[in-house]
Amino acid sequence: MLLALELVGLFAFSVSGALMAIRKGFDVIGIVLLAGITALGGGVARDVIIGATPPVAFTDLGYFLMPVAAAVVTFFAHPALERLTTAVLVFDAAGLGVFCVTGTLKSLAYGLSPLPAAVLGVVTGVGGGVLRDMIARETPALVRPDAELYAVPAIAGTIAVACQPRLAVPAAVVIVAFRLVALARRWHAPTAFILAKCPSRSAPNPPC
Amino acid sequence: MLLALELVGLFAFSVSGALMAIRKGFDVIGIVLLAGITALGGGVARDVIIGATPPVAFTDLGYFLMPVAAAVVTFFAHPALERLTTAVLVFDAAGLGVFCVTGTLKSLAYGLSPLPAAVLGVVTGVGGGVLRDMIARETPALVRPDAELYAVPAIAGTIAVACQPRLAVPAAVVIVAFRLVALARRWHAPTAFILAKCPSRSAPNPPC
Amino acid sequence: MLLALELVGLFAFSVSGALMAIRKGFDVIGIVLLAGITALGGGVARDVIIGATPPVAFTDLGYFLMPVAAAVVTFFAHPALERLTTAVLVFDAAGLGVFCVTGTLKSLAYGLSPLPAAVLGVVTGVGGGVLRDMIARETPALVRPDAELYAVPAIAGTIAVACQPRLAVPAAVVIVAFRLVALARRWHAPTAFILAKCPSRSAPNPPC
Repeated sequence: MLLALELVGLFAFSVSGALMAIRKGFDVIGIVLLAGITALGGGVARDVIIGATPPVAFTDLGYFLMPVAAAVVTFFAHPALERLTTAVLVFDAAGLGVFCVTGTLKSLAYGLSPLPAAVLGVVTGVGGGVLRDMIARETPALVRPDAELYAVPAIAGTIAVACQPRLAVPAAVVIVAFRLVALARRWHAPTAFILAKCPSRSAPNPPC
Repeated sequence: MLLALELVGLFAFSVSGALMAIRKGFDVIGIVLLAGITALGGGVARDVIIGATPPVAFTDLGYFLMPVAAAVVTFFAHPALERLTTAVLVFDAAGLGVFCVTGTLKSLAYGLSPLPAAVLGVVTGVGGGVLRDMIARETPALVRPDAELYAVPAIAGTIAVACQPRLAVPAAVVIVAFRLVALARRWHAPTAFILAKCPSRSAPNPPC
Repeated sequence: MLLALELVGLFAFSVSGALMAIRKGFDVIGIVLLAGITALGGGVARDVIIGATPPVAFTDLGYFLMPVAAAVVTFFAHPALERLTTAVLVFDAAGLGVFCVTGTLKSLAYGLSPLPAAVLGVVTGVGGGVLRDMIARETPALVRPDAELYAVPAIAGTIAVACQPRLAVPAAVVIVAFRLVALARRWHAPTAFILAKCPSRSAPNPPC
């Protein structure tokens, strides 16, 4: 079950990287590269930081082949995948939930205390996307105020897992559900500029 | 004393990251992310390179909470902080001095020879700022010819420490003083273009 | 022989980084930084990933001094080096061949299986150039469809070495020759857009 969700997440992350590469006009090397970095970048960063070298992405062949397969599919079927935005976003939310939780659990297992473990769980879930946007020379979607909440569900879920590892499954469900609701209702994180310009600083989403 | 300076430096680095995020219109996640990466990125890079995993930033809670605290302060008080430019630059110079020296000493303790240890000391001091500028899609201030000398004081100080670890305190003082004088007198590093355009190529700072 | 080729490659990689820094108007710090990151970035990334810390670039003084020497030469002689494009490209191809092969062999020696070892060989050869382009805020040459094949020769050669380590020397020769022919005949990798727009999707280089 967890493994199936992880594969679904790897596929969705890879597709988002491959689609970004195609939109940017990269060649086939760039498509495979961006698929792989989006899918595996967060986990590799986590493993390098906790000292779990070589990272699991370099020891488990499945991690390796999924981005290549997703890149090949996207290479030929990208017009269809661009139209399937909703499906890709739902799969991506599933990946976010699984990667954040497994990343937190692995960091705990390597002896980190709860707060750093939660942060590395978030790194596992969102790191690949930030690297994707850096290579594609885009402002990271993670920090754009017009992008729906992505890190906030991740943080909420990983802190829950870090404090109580037995909450792994419900925490993953909360991350996925929170992310999907944020997408559906267009929830955004506040910016400092908006707060500074508005008369009422206490409102989380001021109307002005 | 050293600890106090390190906290001052962490705060200044975090504020510079948070201010950059606000200037770029990032949301609150981006403000915390850029504060944390600016403050901790150089030290994490150093620890990963010397094999000191997990990095101290992930084992010492103070390193973790300072960027979050600085991001919160900057989120609400950024117009005031923008006006306190001089104070932020002085605190930043203090951070540069402390981080360069402690980074060099730690690299020596992990068995590196003096020259690589000095380079890793510089990485500790300037790495976070380069990552900040890469994520914000800016030309790194470190390499801009219109930015006052930053790496040059760092290199001078870390080489001194690497050759004679007992010079730690005077080397940190030299880095801070050299940086502040460079700011006050607007010292810049030469570019190859300036040299190429000038009749005399041998002068380090040609007048043209 | 291998060592001589490695030094030639380090020099070529460093020059390409220093020339990029000069073209971007970076100061002398930026020129040395970009020379060093282009020459050493791929190998450092490989060593950090396989857990060979500190990386060889931080233990072997020759790796350290070559980029500094190349940066100094480029700083003064960059108009001549810009005119020697062909020589720089040939040296760069030599570096690509050597670094890909030695990177694959080292990864195998650290216990990785053939496919991940081949990928890390490619990372060793091309990683520095990608970091160079990210810091210089350029679309990585590695993924630009108007750049001649670079990763494809690297992948072909590293897979051969990974499967049969005794093929190290012929594989390096194949990488260099493949890269030089790709340059001479202007071979490019296909993009998804071209395929999507063309009637015949099966042709690797459609004429439209």
